[in-house]
Amino acid sequence: MQRTLCSALPHAEPGSTVRLQGWVHRRRELATVTFLVVRDRSGLAQVVLRDGETARLAELPEETTVDVVGVATPNAQAPGGIEVTEPAVTLLTEPAATPPVELWRPTLNAGLSTMLDRAPVTWRHPAQRARWELAAATLRGFRGTLDEAGFTEIQTPKLVASATESGANVFGVDYFGRPAYLAQSPQFYKQQLVGVFERVYEVGPVFRAEPHDTVRHLAEYVSLDVELGFVDDHRDVLAVLRTVLAGMVAAVHEHAAPAVERTGADVPVVPEEFPVIHFRDALALVGAPDDEPDLAPEHERALGAWARAEHGSDFVAVEGYPMVKRPFYTHPWPGDERWSNSFDLLFRGVELVTGGQRLHRHSEYDAAIRARGEDPGTYASYLQSFAHGMPPHGGFAIGLERWTSRLTGAANVREVTLFPRDLNRLTP
Amino acid sequence: MQRTLCSALPHAEPGSTVRLQGWVHRRRELATVTFLVVRDRSGLAQVVLRDGETARLAELPEETTVDVVGVATPNAQAPGGIEVTEPAVTLLTEPAATPPVELWRPTLNAGLSTMLDRAPVTWRHPAQRARWELAAATLRGFRGTLDEAGFTEIQTPKLVASATESGANVFGVDYFGRPAYLAQSPQFYKQQLVGVFERVYEVGPVFRAEPHDTVRHLAEYVSLDVELGFVDDHRDVLAVLRTVLAGMVAAVHEHAAPAVERTGADVPVVPEEFPVIHFRDALALVGAPDDEPDLAPEHERALGAWARAEHGSDFVAVEGYPMVKRPFYTHPWPGDERWSNSFDLLFRGVELVTGGQRLHRHSEYDAAIRARGEDPGTYASYLQSFAHGMPPHGGFAIGLERWTSRLTGAANVREVTLFPRDLNRLTP
Repeated sequence: MQRTLCSALPHAEPGSTVRLQGWVHRRRELATVTFLVVRDRSGLAQVVLRDGETARLAELPEETTVDVVGVATPNAQAPGGIEVTEPAVTLLTEPAATPPVELWRPTLNAGLSTMLDRAPVTWRHPAQRARWELAAATLRGFRGTLDEAGFTEIQTPKLVASATESGANVFGVDYFGRPAYLAQSPQFYKQQLVGVFERVYEVGPVFRAEPHDTVRHLAEYVSLDVELGFVDDHRDVLAVLRTVLAGMVAAVHEHAAPAVERTGADVPVVPEEFPVIHFRDALALVGAPDDEPDLAPEHERALGAWARAEHGSDFVAVEGYPMVKRPFYTHPWPGDERWSNSFDLLFRGVELVTGGQRLHRHSEYDAAIRARGEDPGTYASYLQSFAHGMPPHGGFAIGLERWTSRLTGAANVREVTLFPRDLNRLTP
Repeated sequence: MQRTLCSALPHAEPGSTVRLQGWVHRRRELATVTFLVVRDRSGLAQVVLRDGETARLAELPEETTVDVVGVATPNAQAPGGIEVTEPAVTLLTEPAATPPVELWRPTLNAGLSTMLDRAPVTWRHPAQRARWELAAATLRGFRGTLDEAGFTEIQTPKLVASATESGANVFGVDYFGRPAYLAQSPQFYKQQLVGVFERVYEVGPVFRAEPHDTVRHLAEYVSLDVELGFVDDHRDVLAVLRTVLAGMVAAVHEHAAPAVERTGADVPVVPEEFPVIHFRDALALVGAPDDEPDLAPEHERALGAWARAEHGSDFVAVEGYPMVKRPFYTHPWPGDERWSNSFDLLFRGVELVTGGQRLHRHSEYDAAIRARGEDPGTYASYLQSFAHGMPPHGGFAIGLERWTSRLTGAANVREVTLFPRDLNRLTP
């Protein structure tokens, strides 16, 4: 017979026979009755054990998987107003070993390192699992928005012959006896593919051999990359970013409302237009010296507070970052080459997205690479696209885990990463 | 002013001013008039050069990017019945270098190795680009079908501490001075996450250090992975696979009809149910000895022909493959443990998908690993999920490039891979 999801049980015909399948989330033995709380992907349901079955099943360890066939019975005290009575309970596996943490508690009571070591089990907790339901809904909104806007999804190689943007922090791979590297970003590829598709996006892993053990750094994370051609400047890129974030937020509301509730995520309102401030003015606003080349974390926090107070926005874009702090492919600010046509988008006072306009002329690349004291010949594969005609273009990248950590207020990015990889962690 | 895509030009108000942006696809100099054919992501449009501009622009190398503002003018001879006259043409970059291949020809006239070496330029050819438009539409259908069916999208790590399924063919990585490997598949992770989400899917790169230089092997490819819990057996998995393939095909028709036309793709009809034949019967059908442990390519071709002739189907599922040829986590065939609850789906006589039911009891894993002469302790991280209660489950994996190569009839999987990686190729 057809399975009924726990979330659908309240809609079952009273008196009808239903079948639940799931995990024993909790046993509750009261004075006169014993309940089995069953968990599936949709939620929880209450099963009332018959006297004859109580002895056998009341000892069932939590997390054992079961099949329950019984009668849908109204009970005002039951979650959703319906419980399952007269159950025939079949074990789908052996009785489970007792979980390392009590998954039935409303809040998981475990340290981060235990949670990560036992991730395949601890993430079963409904409030934990909900974090990736948010992430999945986010991706749905990201792709859906871009599909509608004429973007083509691409997959670019993660095994590359040389470091993407800088020689530092790359993982080396033994590639059939030759050296290769793991891609730090799809930057070069997505630019080249603007030449093919005009508008592209990619969702995929990127790899950074960051020798830092902080709450923000991961050695492998999921990057949401976008690149588009025929832009006037970085403001066109920022406008696409705004539409994409609005689509991500809408999808979270549409597809992950229960996860928002379970995680207590504070989902932002994406304004019709982002407040934008030039880097130079941002320094002045936060009282930093006007020759600072970057924004310190406290500066970003102050800008976040300013955006909230002055513009009622959780987001603020800082444009015009000094060229000296941006990668060589960055397009300078027309008329003043100290600044660049690039931006950071701050979300609640923390950088969420970096983006901007890139150089598009072959001659500009040649000059920019020589200015760094490098040989354009080493970039020949990348530069062929520019020799053969590229439009003005730009793009951005969003770190998925950074987004979900800001959304859920996680103190550590590892809390929203299924199986984090860092300086010290390569398992599970 | 607003840009008009080439595909929208036929709908422009005659006499109105329009703006095109794109690449110079072709110059055509006739006796009395010179045309500039402009290409953008949507198609081609014809621009009629004014006498005064002919001299300057007629020499413009193909692939130069341009901005054209002119008048939408009806002309029955023009593609779509509208061309652009009295154009003001602005170069967006320097004049481009002449492309390595003639992109304006209906068919690209170049050898595979030239095409791959110059991929960022050669893939601009409309018929080439269309291959990834098919791939992108396929992914949209894959994800959309699974999203609707209650699956959660996951991202699992590509950096792992040990080889996934076998010690062979893995790429080694220097992970902060320790050995690590690139994941050959997300198999172990997707199974563990059935414990968390019940139903999961992932689209991501997998890595195989295959020392073979064939038309089928890639060192890095895109795997479409699915895994679901609470199945009765592999037939439930096969039913999900059928729905997913139907969704992929529907999305190709809905979102990539022009690409189907440009590539000449022969998009299959997915039947309401796949014909299924047991491995043992398949051997008999093709006249192979009954102790053969696998199907040879000619056997698969014969089965494909049989499915077409007998069932009018491009697809046939072979179930019950010998356990000896399947990985250790494969669920045996109830009642006869020579066979397994696994299948291959053949598409037009070639294997497209491998899937099946997995073991779900901890004790079964323990026995299966010991039977291979291995120590279950080395799988401790993977096995913890099974100790803590897992449902009967199964899944499958589709190779994206294999699918698009079969769809387009590509002789070599590299033709449908943006930047292939193999024994000899690591660039561009």
